[in-house]
Amino acid sequence: MATETKNNATMIVFDGDLDKAIASFIIATGAAAMGKQVTMFFTFWGLNVLRKEEHIDIKDKNFLEKMFAKMMPRGPKKLKLSKMNYGGVGSHLMKKMMKEHNVSTLPELIEMAQDLDVKMVACTMTMDVMGLKEEELMDGIEFAGVASYLSEAEDANVNLFI
Amino acid sequence: MATETKNNATMIVFDGDLDKAIASFIIATGAAAMGKQVTMFFTFWGLNVLRKEEHIDIKDKNFLEKMFAKMMPRGPKKLKLSKMNYGGVGSHLMKKMMKEHNVSTLPELIEMAQDLDVKMVACTMTMDVMGLKEEELMDGIEFAGVASYLSEAEDANVNLFI
Amino acid sequence: MATETKNNATMIVFDGDLDKAIASFIIATGAAAMGKQVTMFFTFWGLNVLRKEEHIDIKDKNFLEKMFAKMMPRGPKKLKLSKMNYGGVGSHLMKKMMKEHNVSTLPELIEMAQDLDVKMVACTMTMDVMGLKEEELMDGIEFAGVASYLSEAEDANVNLFI
Repeated sequence: MATETKNNATMIVFDGDLDKAIASFIIATGAAAMGKQVTMFFTFWGLNVLRKEEHIDIKDKNFLEKMFAKMMPRGPKKLKLSKMNYGGVGSHLMKKMMKEHNVSTLPELIEMAQDLDVKMVACTMTMDVMGLKEEELMDGIEFAGVASYLSEAEDANVNLFI
Repeated sequence: MATETKNNATMIVFDGDLDKAIASFIIATGAAAMGKQVTMFFTFWGLNVLRKEEHIDIKDKNFLEKMFAKMMPRGPKKLKLSKMNYGGVGSHLMKKMMKEHNVSTLPELIEMAQDLDVKMVACTMTMDVMGLKEEELMDGIEFAGVASYLSEAEDANVNLFI
Repeated sequence: MATETKNNATMIVFDGDLDKAIASFIIATGAAAMGKQVTMFFTFWGLNVLRKEEHIDIKDKNFLEKMFAKMMPRGPKKLKLSKMNYGGVGSHLMKKMMKEHNVSTLPELIEMAQDLDVKMVACTMTMDVMGLKEEELMDGIEFAGVASYLSEAEDANVNLFI
């Protein structure tokens, strides 16, 4: 049955770099606009894409979890390029050049994805490992594990690891 | 209809590192030799794989575009390894070891891909953002956006992001 | 015929970083537990995941091959994080945090994959290029080239490049 309808798309967003995040949301919104059901599964460093910009005070974090949380970028505006970042200069220039060419910013692309019903899922296992809590991630997302990803991928033919 | 024929292959070539570019062309030529229709979609740093070796003088570039163009590698011979590059020593050694084992060089693999009718597409949106013009990229390639990639991916079951 | 049964999964393990290796084995064991036939194809730096921990003395290696072998990590316990590694501190902390949350270690995940009959294949072409011999890689794996990968991918809808 499922074999007849492998038309969906899934993406594992692993790296969480600015350029790769932009690429994944451009693909996601494009595919959703074409009528595909799209699931984005954020894991490891990709979880940083979903973090809220402001600091959320969580009581029951241990030292390591606090340290990790402090060192990782908080949300789409803080991400760095995977190449030629040069301490943030590169990502600043990339954003400038995108603006000059009327390309949507990453926060705009994320909003667009939510409007197009792209399913955004945070990986609960890596959240646990990295000590990230649900309150620290943006609203409107789901929380699930690898089994949930695999069951979405089952019905898709475009399955990317980014 | 399309569901019956998901036998093609697509690759998004994003990183543009020497090792990843070699891997993508080995997969592409292998798949094409097996009779698959293969589309490679070059975006972000992957566009550097397609750049002509010589400097092309473009009049209407702004300062940022000129700077980006200067800092990014010009074509397959200038690419660096994603790991163990050590200022170019690593990529030099990798090429030497590939030659010793009669593995085709990246320029040879690209030629082979073109002979096997692998469709090579440069992403127009990232060309715009990075200020790369059609004249700066190699001959025999196509220019298109994400919708074109997605429509190729629709008929494929092997869809890789490299 | 094959079009009816594209239910398998393949992964090209290219990068060989600790975090990416963990992610690939979590996906592989999850998919195998769901009844999928899973093939992992280790190439380039991904071969390091399969290396035996102890030094294996190989007589007919040339200088370059010896040097490469010396500089690349030997096996799953020596791998580094793709980000925030900080000279090994990051990977040490990641392992600690995984243990605290009862996530299996990479060696455990590999054993689990073998118990679940995940097919692990080392890419013979990159073994040649990097001068790695069969005796240097773990037991119970297969050795093959890109054609073998492509024929597995032919029957799969989840094909990832990691």
